[in-house]
Order: sequence, then C-alpha cells, then structure tokens
Amino acid sequence: MPVDDEVWAAPPFAAEILDARAIDLPDFYGKCIVARGARNQKGPIMGFVNALRSLRAVRGDIPVNVIFTFDGEEELGSMNFVGPFRQRFLDELKQADVAYYLNPSQNAKGDQVLYLGNRGIAFGELEIRGGEWGGPAKGPLFAPHDLWVDSPAWRLAQALATLKDRDGNILVEGFYDNVRPPSAEDRELLEQLKASFDEEQTKRDLGIHRFKRGRSGSELYETFLMRPNINIDGYSSGYTGAYVKTMFPDRALAKIDIRLVPDQTMDEILGKLRKHFDRHGFPEVEIKIQGCYNPSKTSLHAPITQAAIRAADLHGVKTVCWPIYYAGIPMAVFSDPPLNLPAIGFGLGRMGREHIANEYFTVEGLHLYEKFVVTFLHELARQ
Amino acid sequence: MPVDDEVWAAPPFAAEILDARAIDLPDFYGKCIVARGARNQKGPIMGFVNALRSLRAVRGDIPVNVIFTFDGEEELGSMNFVGPFRQRFLDELKQADVAYYLNPSQNAKGDQVLYLGNRGIAFGELEIRGGEWGGPAKGPLFAPHDLWVDSPAWRLAQALATLKDRDGNILVEGFYDNVRPPSAEDRELLEQLKASFDEEQTKRDLGIHRFKRGRSGSELYETFLMRPNINIDGYSSGYTGAYVKTMFPDRALAKIDIRLVPDQTMDEILGKLRKHFDRHGFPEVEIKIQGCYNPSKTSLHAPITQAAIRAADLHGVKTVCWPIYYAGIPMAVFSDPPLNLPAIGFGLGRMGREHIANEYFTVEGLHLYEKFVVTFLHELARQ
Repeated sequence: MPVDDEVWAAPPFAAEILDARAIDLPDFYGKCIVARGARNQKGPIMGFVNALRSLRAVRGDIPVNVIFTFDGEEELGSMNFVGPFRQRFLDELKQADVAYYLNPSQNAKGDQVLYLGNRGIAFGELEIRGGEWGGPAKGPLFAPHDLWVDSPAWRLAQALATLKDRDGNILVEGFYDNVRPPSAEDRELLEQLKASFDEEQTKRDLGIHRFKRGRSGSELYETFLMRPNINIDGYSSGYTGAYVKTMFPDRALAKIDIRLVPDQTMDEILGKLRKHFDRHGFPEVEIKIQGCYNPSKTSLHAPITQAAIRAADLHGVKTVCWPIYYAGIPMAVFSDPPLNLPAIGFGLGRMGREHIANEYFTVEGLHLYEKFVVTFLHELARQ
Repeated sequence: MPVDDEVWAAPPFAAEILDARAIDLPDFYGKCIVARGARNQKGPIMGFVNALRSLRAVRGDIPVNVIFTFDGEEELGSMNFVGPFRQRFLDELKQADVAYYLNPSQNAKGDQVLYLGNRGIAFGELEIRGGEWGGPAKGPLFAPHDLWVDSPAWRLAQALATLKDRDGNILVEGFYDNVRPPSAEDRELLEQLKASFDEEQTKRDLGIHRFKRGRSGSELYETFLMRPNINIDGYSSGYTGAYVKTMFPDRALAKIDIRLVPDQTMDEILGKLRKHFDRHGFPEVEIKIQGCYNPSKTSLHAPITQAAIRAADLHGVKTVCWPIYYAGIPMAVFSDPPLNLPAIGFGLGRMGREHIANEYFTVEGLHLYEKFVVTFLHELARQ
C-alpha cells in the first residue's frame, strides 16, 4: 500500500515511536509505533517472530511446528498466492493442521475481535470500447453522432443498472444460489453483535444521515455482515473537467469489487456475471479481473478458534466473534479443498489505520501480542 | 476554445499562411491561414468587415443597415448572450429584419451548405452527492458499507439508465411532445440529402464498424438529422487509476448535453427532466445547467435564405440545404419571440477544423467570402 498524499506525523517508513496524542489517540494508548505497515503487516510479523525467538531462548523449543507463508501481493489481489504459489507448495501445505493469519485486533473496548471467516473477493474492471459490435472505434466523436452510433457510456450505465436493484439486491441470475444460510452458531453470534450495535454512533462513525433507502441500521445489520455484494469503486468515461466537452466518448470503464460469502465461489460468480451481460444484450462488456479468491469460513468450535478464545481469556480479555468479516483476506488458499484447513486471524494488541496516515501499533500492544502468541501456541498444542 | 495538447503546423495564435499540403489538405486548396479562430470565428469576422470596407471605399455606402452583435461565450454556453445581453439590447435588435451568422461553409465538393436551423442546446452536470437523502456525507467509505449505505455511483448509473432505452429513445416523459414534424419542405430536403448519403464512406469517416444497434445508416439518417437527443459527454465517480481502490465513492457526476429541435424549448425540457428524476425516485440528482438556449428554424422560402442561394448561384456555386444543423448556435436570441427573425448562417469559402489542430481558412476562400458578402448584401437589399 503506497503512501499517496497522506499527511503523517512521522516519516511513514521510519517507524518512529510517538505519544498517542501526537496521532490523535487517547492517552492510555501510550507510546505508538507509527509507520506504514505497523499494523498491516510488518508489526504483527515482527511480534510473531519475537515470540518464537523468546520461546527458543527461554525453553529451547516451540510447542508446535510452524510453516511461514508470505503473500507480497495481498493489496493487488493475491493472484500468485492463490494460484502458482499454492500449486507449487501444496505438498508442504498439506502438512499443516491450521492456518493462522497474524491479526492482533483488540477493539476500542479492549475485546479481541475474531472473524470466523473472510469474504471472497474479485476486483477488476468492466469496460466497453467501440469496435465490431458498434460504437466509435477510432476515438471520440462529436456529440450529435450519439443519435446514430452506439455509445459505450450509455451502454455501460445501462449494463450497470441491470446488476442491482434500488434496494441493493444483486440481479445477476443465480447470484445468491449458493449462499450458505446462517447456521445456528452464526445466528447466536449475530444476536450478540446486534445487541451491542449502536445505530446513532455508527451513523456518526460512517458520516451518514441515513442507512440505505431510509431503513434502520438494525434492520440492515445482518445484510451488512452476511450478504455478498457487488460494489462500484469508480467509473469514468469521456471528459469530466470544467464545463462540458460536447463529445461522444469511445470508451467507458467501471471498477468493481465483488465480495462473496460461503459457499459461493469466484469461478461460479464470474461465470454467472458473464452470462448475465450476454443474456441482457451486453456481450460487449469486457470483464477484466485483477484479483480474485474464494471466501473462507471456520467454526466457532474449531480447535484453533477455541485456543484463540482461551488464550485471550488467560490474559483477561474477552473475545467477540463475527460469523464472517466484511473484507477479504486470501485464507481460501488454506480453507479451500484439498487442504480444508480452519483458517482465521486474531490476537491481542491495539493497532489500526491500515491504508491511511499514521498507521500504528501501540508499543504495549506489540508486547501483549508477543505474550499472546506464546499463550496461543501452547493452547493450540494442548488440543 | 483553448489549445490543449494539439500539435499544430504553425503557432496557433500567429495566423501563419501555409501551403495546403503542410496541413494535409489537397493541393488545390492553395494557401491557407492556419490559426485558432481562422474558421471559428475570427476569419469570417474579418472577411465580413473587409467586404463592408470595400463597399464603402468603392461605392461610398452599404446596401443594407448592419447591426453587429458579438458573443464571446459561445463555447461556454452563451448564457449572457441569450440572457442579459438580449434583454439589454432588445429595442435595438427590434430594428433588424434578419439575423445572419457568418458561416462560410463550402463542402468538399464545393457546394455552399446552408442549415435552415440550429438545434437548441443545454449542457451541464448531473450530480449525486451523499447527504440528507442518504449516501456517505463525509467522504468515501470502505467498499463493504455499500451493503447498507446508499451509493451515489449505483444510483447515478440507475438514474442515467432511466433516461434512454437501448434503441436511443429518450424516456423522459413528454420529451418528444413538442417536436415539430418535418414539413413538406423538410421532407424534400431530406430526400435530397439522403440521395447523396454514402453509408460506407460515412462509416469510414466516423471510424465505426456499425451504426446503432446494427441498423443501417440510411435508416437512421433522418434520426441523426432531425431528432432531439441527450448525450453523455462523460462521467466519473471514485478512483479509476491502476488496479482498484475498494472504496465506496461519496459522489458521482455525469456531464450531459441535450440537443433540442423546434418547437421544443429548454425551459420545457429541463422541467420535464427534473420531474422525470423525481417521479422515478431520484430526487437527489442535482441538475446543474451551464449553457442553454432554444432551437431555431428558418424557412427555405425566407428572403434571407433565397438571397443566400441566389448570391451563391451568381458565383457559380450550388447550395445544399439541411432542414436543421445537428449542432447548436444561439440563433434563438433572434428567432425566438418577440423578435421572430429568420436567423441562419452560410457563405462561400473553404475552411474547417474548428476546435482542433490546424484550423484553417483558405486564402482563396477568404477572398471568395468577401465577394460573396457583397453579392449577398445586394441580393438581400433587392427583396
């Protein structure tokens, strides 16, 4: 994740230690390591390595075997991680019993937040360019030619409008076919989460006046947590500077990200998306996927989950479980067949602001995470 | 019209005289004045003034009275010309019998092209920003919040899709109500134009493989010449650079231009557009008009038209009449009530490439235009 035009309190690649108040955090957060990657993912990696080093220094061994896997392209869609990497090292990965994603995650109240799964994701572009099907093939035309030449801009707007209704339901045929209904376990966790949902605070946090279509946040909370989605991240066509250039663009582009839940798969959904555009008369929409992996899901009762909860308990910290996280992490590398591993992330320690200015990991949080890792590995070894 | 990143054969504001071949024109075009404004509109203005000066020098007078009006904002929508200017000088303008737009216009074959009207135009922006109605009001959100917060990007795509069907018909209620059907005169001119329409050449000129929806250009020719339209000039929302930023934009913008034909008016159509969005559940679409004027139409049998045709005849040049031009020029300032003047543009002389690199007026064309103006003014005085 590059540093764009963010304003940092310290150089983003120096890893300076600042007081919490210097980066607008409460005083009780104490000293903070401020750097790009402090939270995502250099801080947790160093914490984990420090824990293993301490174990070897103090005990001479580590209670479980550890295989490290690194994905240097997670922000770019993990195409090599979920593809060639996994294929190349499948035999080695088959020796693993669980997959653990280094994700210290104490929330504002201090609870460990544990996500029992991750949405799958596909992101990329929908593009229409003039060509054999119609449309200007050699550059933009003067606006009135829109009367007798097909318009990539109109057609992309029309194609996008076929994807979703105004309530937010995806209209791609069969999109929801394989959505696994919430289990009894999921329902129970949902009820717990909903009990602590603060509608007004959430509106303030998000900077919104109303939830979708004026419905209540409580009503939409399960949708937010549990449903798959297609988001428009951006779109562009033609000139959009000052005034209007009355031209007829030869190209229109939309950036989208699709987020799936178990048991949807990306192959299935991208196939359905292609069929959708073809059936609805938009064969000219090119679907260019740049990052793509399946959803993953682990049970509350899986040994790794229980070890994580017990380890936090031993440090006096409560765990809040979400049935699934709304964002994507490519844990499907481990949770998909043939590995079928339980695969989740968790841990103690305060950190935040991934992808934005003043990303941080509190010094106390880093120490706590190192201790937590030792506790967790012992709990895992006890299974 | 500024010079952006165009590549010119001579400095665009020097008005150098170059050989036709230096700007990729046929040799028989001879010497060419190459400059921004050579064709639109400094060249014709100087030609007209030169003609009047010559008349006074040779004859001591001019056969008709002339009132000059200048619009310095034609490329920006002429809002002051059609508004405050017209209002301020209405009494002076009431003294006029005809309105003439300086538009020497010989085509490749050498014919004078005379447009018996101009489409009206409105251009501007359709914008949706998060706010009271919903949507992110304080900047973009992380993509998954699209599941429970209204999305300006989705809603603008859906709103645009309600404006036009896939065949290009405008779906704004009552949009075509006041379109004046082609007169017998229009029909005759249309048939003449259609007789010389070259489908394959037009496709090559436009750089297209097919006309709209695979229909023939002949079939769509009348639509192209005679129908009103809404064009998407461009749109933008969110991030559209390399890869995808999986965010949920708080703003979506479309640039549009609307082109009207007699007897539609901009007030009528913009009112209908507002009602359309409201009725279809998109009250949050803001319509921001930056330029706007009504269509204009003059009869083939109007004295000014006949004088123009006779003047060209006297120079041995044939005239091709179009019922209306597909582009807009604010002649409604003169042709709308209370003035109701016949108001058209025409003239001899070869020139072209307005708005693009190597805009030109041939030297011979400038001389011919000056002579034509003298002939035309005499023909007009004879009425």
